[in-house]
Amino acid sequence: MSHFAAITKAVADARAANPLVGSWTNFVTINLVANTQLAVGGRAAMCFMPDEAIPLTSISKATYINIGTLEPVALEALPQAAEAAVHLQKPWVFDPVAAGLGDTRNAIIKALKKSKPSVIRGNASEIIAVSHLWELQSANKGNVDGVDATDSVEDALFSARELAKWTGGVVAVSGETDVVLDARQTFRISGGSAMLKTITGAGCSLGGVIAVYAGVTDPLTAALTGSLAYKWASEEAESSSTGSGSFQVAFIDRLSLLSGDALIAYARGVLKAN
Amino acid sequence: MSHFAAITKAVADARAANPLVGSWTNFVTINLVANTQLAVGGRAAMCFMPDEAIPLTSISKATYINIGTLEPVALEALPQAAEAAVHLQKPWVFDPVAAGLGDTRNAIIKALKKSKPSVIRGNASEIIAVSHLWELQSANKGNVDGVDATDSVEDALFSARELAKWTGGVVAVSGETDVVLDARQTFRISGGSAMLKTITGAGCSLGGVIAVYAGVTDPLTAALTGSLAYKWASEEAESSSTGSGSFQVAFIDRLSLLSGDALIAYARGVLKAN
Amino acid sequence: MSHFAAITKAVADARAANPLVGSWTNFVTINLVANTQLAVGGRAAMCFMPDEAIPLTSISKATYINIGTLEPVALEALPQAAEAAVHLQKPWVFDPVAAGLGDTRNAIIKALKKSKPSVIRGNASEIIAVSHLWELQSANKGNVDGVDATDSVEDALFSARELAKWTGGVVAVSGETDVVLDARQTFRISGGSAMLKTITGAGCSLGGVIAVYAGVTDPLTAALTGSLAYKWASEEAESSSTGSGSFQVAFIDRLSLLSGDALIAYARGVLKAN
Repeated sequence: MSHFAAITKAVADARAANPLVGSWTNFVTINLVANTQLAVGGRAAMCFMPDEAIPLTSISKATYINIGTLEPVALEALPQAAEAAVHLQKPWVFDPVAAGLGDTRNAIIKALKKSKPSVIRGNASEIIAVSHLWELQSANKGNVDGVDATDSVEDALFSARELAKWTGGVVAVSGETDVVLDARQTFRISGGSAMLKTITGAGCSLGGVIAVYAGVTDPLTAALTGSLAYKWASEEAESSSTGSGSFQVAFIDRLSLLSGDALIAYARGVLKAN
Repeated sequence: MSHFAAITKAVADARAANPLVGSWTNFVTINLVANTQLAVGGRAAMCFMPDEAIPLTSISKATYINIGTLEPVALEALPQAAEAAVHLQKPWVFDPVAAGLGDTRNAIIKALKKSKPSVIRGNASEIIAVSHLWELQSANKGNVDGVDATDSVEDALFSARELAKWTGGVVAVSGETDVVLDARQTFRISGGSAMLKTITGAGCSLGGVIAVYAGVTDPLTAALTGSLAYKWASEEAESSSTGSGSFQVAFIDRLSLLSGDALIAYARGVLKAN
Repeated sequence: MSHFAAITKAVADARAANPLVGSWTNFVTINLVANTQLAVGGRAAMCFMPDEAIPLTSISKATYINIGTLEPVALEALPQAAEAAVHLQKPWVFDPVAAGLGDTRNAIIKALKKSKPSVIRGNASEIIAVSHLWELQSANKGNVDGVDATDSVEDALFSARELAKWTGGVVAVSGETDVVLDARQTFRISGGSAMLKTITGAGCSLGGVIAVYAGVTDPLTAALTGSLAYKWASEEAESSSTGSGSFQVAFIDRLSLLSGDALIAYARGVLKAN
């Protein structure tokens, strides 16, 4: 099946199946993650306790793990959530927010290495930092600056490919042009609105939406569908907003109105494979 | 006083008295809970620490306890918050989100049994699960699927009545048609917008709003007023929204504009007692 | 440089430099804090773990500490975050939400005394309570009622001045008329919209925005700029909103459109020094 056909099907299947995604995510953007997951047809449940890893994963179609804000319990809970996903053969999406910042965060990232994620989504600096923490490359540590990237997406290509080789899954590097790749193929997605950077949680919620699609399709299609949806919805939202507050509202509106046909028509202009 | 007169008075009294509600609630929807409580005239304060149970409850007119996301401290804090409400003779509203999911959650639910809540608000599956965990019925465990119900409201009637008998209070079962009952009467509320299911926190924030009304009226009137307000505001909001983002904004707007007269005019068409 | 020139420069510098603010803040309003910080040009990163105090502060231009919701880890983390700011000579803004409520909160407030904040922002009751907890005055304890003030801004003037003498920094008391003072000067800012009280987080997010400006200018200018911006944006937002939901959206929009010229034109009518 062509990528376009798979993407169209993923958009429709998410609306039809309402896949439940169990998320372990940060306190800053947890509400936006849930609302964007619902907007594309998914259902959202968030947990923090280790004893919920198995029960939540058992009823979920996919798992989303985001390390944006950590508390002591995360050291035990997040590795168990990832192990539960692998053990129960459910896809899981890893969002290594601020990778490299703090001992707890880095200890958790290292602990997650063996539970190979289906999709890793991050900005360039986060992707570089994870690849380094997982000792897939020695050189570049990446330059994490809080939750923002100071490296370019192209700088992160080598790291992203090393990560994809290790996991056998997909890596999505978010930036002005998104890169989505696996061990065999690399896709670039241009377009989108710069206003996405004026609201908190654009990246986190993209990870959460990719997890929704991972509940109904393969990881590569899920990452492409989510990334394209964000480029499309942000362009649409910018045209109907008067500032960053109304942009976020319009962005969620557009996601809730997303159709496969509109997304494919858009994708033809911005998606490049090589 | 007739129910309609009591509801009209509750809407006005909340705006006049600005009752403070102390809430112990989840991280996903905590902001929406606070904003909806403010929208109907209440004031909001949220806590998580056991040492805050007595001081917060002492200055509050009502307490709201929602177990949607749990952390280790909740095992100690939530039972103490409920005990403080009972000890200080303040009404408290229990929102058993995802009842049945995880050992921590079920341990907390069991610990809350003796501190009989004034109102229990949940979806059908949650109501059934609490009734089972409290050993008020042996048979049906309910089918919790994350935070969503897979049982119908009518399926939960027996459980709801068992809970009302135990607590001597009110049980509000949210669904396409809401049921609000106590040991003596049963009310059904139809209407409302299906878009409430497209945003996260519709149920949680209804629980928080019922707690605001419980700060100015009896539990039955509080549950009826909150449930009617959500049906009315969601219908109004749907008519002026273009997606799930603008729906949430319009929904809060409508709650902030709620009047007793408009609510009663609406209630005459959707509220049935039997 | 005149205050007006410094304010104009602060608004422009925040948009040009995008200062990163490391925040330790509450779960209720954390998303609004981040979005308002972004709206005025800053960048936001939130943490909760003690091991992140040094790394986060090292890459931040300013630190924001808000004690609105506490968990056990905060007892260790918040004092360390404040010490890191002092040690690394970065400005930090203290938001003593609900000061006086609970042993944990009061223990943290006492522990923060020695790490003198650049700016303390709170409502009248919180300012009075901190001054008491820091034993800068014996008499008045303040009347904290949840997160709301029951004392007037003028009642808090003595406490605010005692705090400014102790810290050598700035104290901003939020109310119908804001007071911003240091050991030498007192400013009053009138105007603003009463609708700010109908959304949760107006005060918290003001503290977060003052921290953004503290990353590009002196504490007094930062507090004046943030406080004026909130008065201006709330008036503008009220005129284009239909309820408290659309008010919050419009408020963030206005902050994202804030210009120094507009703010100064507004300030000439509402800012009084004496």
